[in-house]
Amino acid sequence: MTDQQITYRDAGVDIDAANEAVLRMRDHIRSTFNANVLTDVGTFGGMFSLAGISAYQEPVLVSSIDGVGTKLKVAIQVGRYESIGRDLVNHCVNDILVQGAQPLFFLDYFATGRLAPSVAVDVVRGLAESCRETGCALIGGETAEMPGVYAEGDFDLAGCIVGLVDRPRIIDGSRIEPGDTLLGIASSGIHTNGFSLARRILLDAGADSLSLYEPVPMLGRTLAEELLTVHRCYAPSIVPLLGEFDIKGMAHITGGGFYDNVPRILPVDCSATIERRTWPVPPIFSLIQERGQVPDPEMFRTFNMGIGIVVVVPAEQAPALAHRLNSAGESAYIIGNIHRGVHEVDII
Amino acid sequence: MTDQQITYRDAGVDIDAANEAVLRMRDHIRSTFNANVLTDVGTFGGMFSLAGISAYQEPVLVSSIDGVGTKLKVAIQVGRYESIGRDLVNHCVNDILVQGAQPLFFLDYFATGRLAPSVAVDVVRGLAESCRETGCALIGGETAEMPGVYAEGDFDLAGCIVGLVDRPRIIDGSRIEPGDTLLGIASSGIHTNGFSLARRILLDAGADSLSLYEPVPMLGRTLAEELLTVHRCYAPSIVPLLGEFDIKGMAHITGGGFYDNVPRILPVDCSATIERRTWPVPPIFSLIQERGQVPDPEMFRTFNMGIGIVVVVPAEQAPALAHRLNSAGESAYIIGNIHRGVHEVDII
Repeated sequence: MTDQQITYRDAGVDIDAANEAVLRMRDHIRSTFNANVLTDVGTFGGMFSLAGISAYQEPVLVSSIDGVGTKLKVAIQVGRYESIGRDLVNHCVNDILVQGAQPLFFLDYFATGRLAPSVAVDVVRGLAESCRETGCALIGGETAEMPGVYAEGDFDLAGCIVGLVDRPRIIDGSRIEPGDTLLGIASSGIHTNGFSLARRILLDAGADSLSLYEPVPMLGRTLAEELLTVHRCYAPSIVPLLGEFDIKGMAHITGGGFYDNVPRILPVDCSATIERRTWPVPPIFSLIQERGQVPDPEMFRTFNMGIGIVVVVPAEQAPALAHRLNSAGESAYIIGNIHRGVHEVDII
Repeated sequence: MTDQQITYRDAGVDIDAANEAVLRMRDHIRSTFNANVLTDVGTFGGMFSLAGISAYQEPVLVSSIDGVGTKLKVAIQVGRYESIGRDLVNHCVNDILVQGAQPLFFLDYFATGRLAPSVAVDVVRGLAESCRETGCALIGGETAEMPGVYAEGDFDLAGCIVGLVDRPRIIDGSRIEPGDTLLGIASSGIHTNGFSLARRILLDAGADSLSLYEPVPMLGRTLAEELLTVHRCYAPSIVPLLGEFDIKGMAHITGGGFYDNVPRILPVDCSATIERRTWPVPPIFSLIQERGQVPDPEMFRTFNMGIGIVVVVPAEQAPALAHRLNSAGESAYIIGNIHRGVHEVDII
């Protein structure tokens, strides 16, 4: 039997720190609210009104949950947390955008070994910023202090997005057919996938490790800047074009790269051929590949290789769509086509 | 520069293990689907149709995200993972139940140091079981392998629930007034809150530590059995009574105990007095308090102390509601009342 009082704080959980964090997050969170949000910060559930939904033929909710992977470790090492929040929201917005949905609201889960309110507040500031940009209300969240699961300065961050699409406007790839064109839109870098491999090769290679803070000639900037570049959100440039072009399918190129993500939208009797010389592979990928001697297929299975999202359209619409996307600030390339096949992706 | 090829697997991420886990989870996940679910496992976003929603005056989505805290550590120590999945869903269902909402769908986030497919599958089996019991579709999930964030056998688990309520039927505490009665419904144990303190006192107390596997006379069972008892879900017994009683507010007693959770539903000019001798405090709490010499207020601020949910009703309805809840298999107690005050909870 212990001979002195033990409190929750002694056990590593500081409810006052949690309350302080929530207070300091509050204005950021509220900045994302719109007329549909019926609750303030701190209720059991966040409430979002669907008033006006009768205008939809058949409203369909589209939702996704995700984390930011070990990009976290780089953010923690550098002490820059806001961009991680933006990464997470942008990633999730893209995940439902590919099905034609526009975001309604977002919830985040932040778990750490010992709560540093300023870190949590920075993360939430980033979440809120991307939420505002995409018209998404940050309606709920959980801040968990879990000593023994996370090391003291470590944390994990996950988030869930819920969006809405009218059933006739769902984009699911089912109408994709041989002859359609694959258009690729440039990523902003390695986004949020493949960081365990990137870190292993660049930062955790013993004497060959690179510094996060010295400019890398091949990149024209530091590794910290390169690796923490925010995951690009494609909603602002794609949403306005949804009604104008016959977009049959979209694939967000995340974990598993082209090989795992493009088949998710292909009909069973269709394959895709992607020509790898149709877009410039950003130097960060060459740096990783050279230093780690990573085989080509492994690179394409782990990283986005410079393409953040793939859009499938009828061949005749592809040039005009590429032009419109480029005018909207994207870099779009015609990267391949659809043909009869066994549900595969060939990169040639 | 390294002199041998490095792959994603070398860096600690095994996409094949992830794919194997998803395959083995699939039937569990599908067992939760209903006619509203439009997508199968593996799409970018999960799609849930709101067909039929025109029957609602003003549909309101109620959502919540949460984890299971360091109850995880006990589950990992014992090697029992299914109950953790059930804990998470039940916790989330309760969180939106208190606002009058019934669940539509759930998404989970499972992050680990090295993916053991059988562990992930057990967790998902538990999630699916509780989802089926509450009519909730397990519509999405993320399985993340994050070496360097989590130790090899460690993992974290979070989940997001989305439910629906018609605006006139929202329960938000705003009609609570002096004279109303607080009814408490028994918890099944410490649920998912206060585990860091419980573990510190019971399991991490040096020579005074208790075994997880030997029966504890005071409990009549082993600590493993006691601590891993599933978080009780109150939806099956409360939902049928929502139309019948004038339930003005409900508080799920989670982290922060009575002191933090009851005020969340109180009008600013109301306080609550709770009489602690009106219900039996389960022996697990006495065991923790005695061994850790934990002060009373700390116990009530950390643990549920035997009450999992508090329901506020007009005084004259309280006995009948308690009776109906008891008939439905709950243990309900009249534990206190509402009076004019400064938004406080007094435990006397």
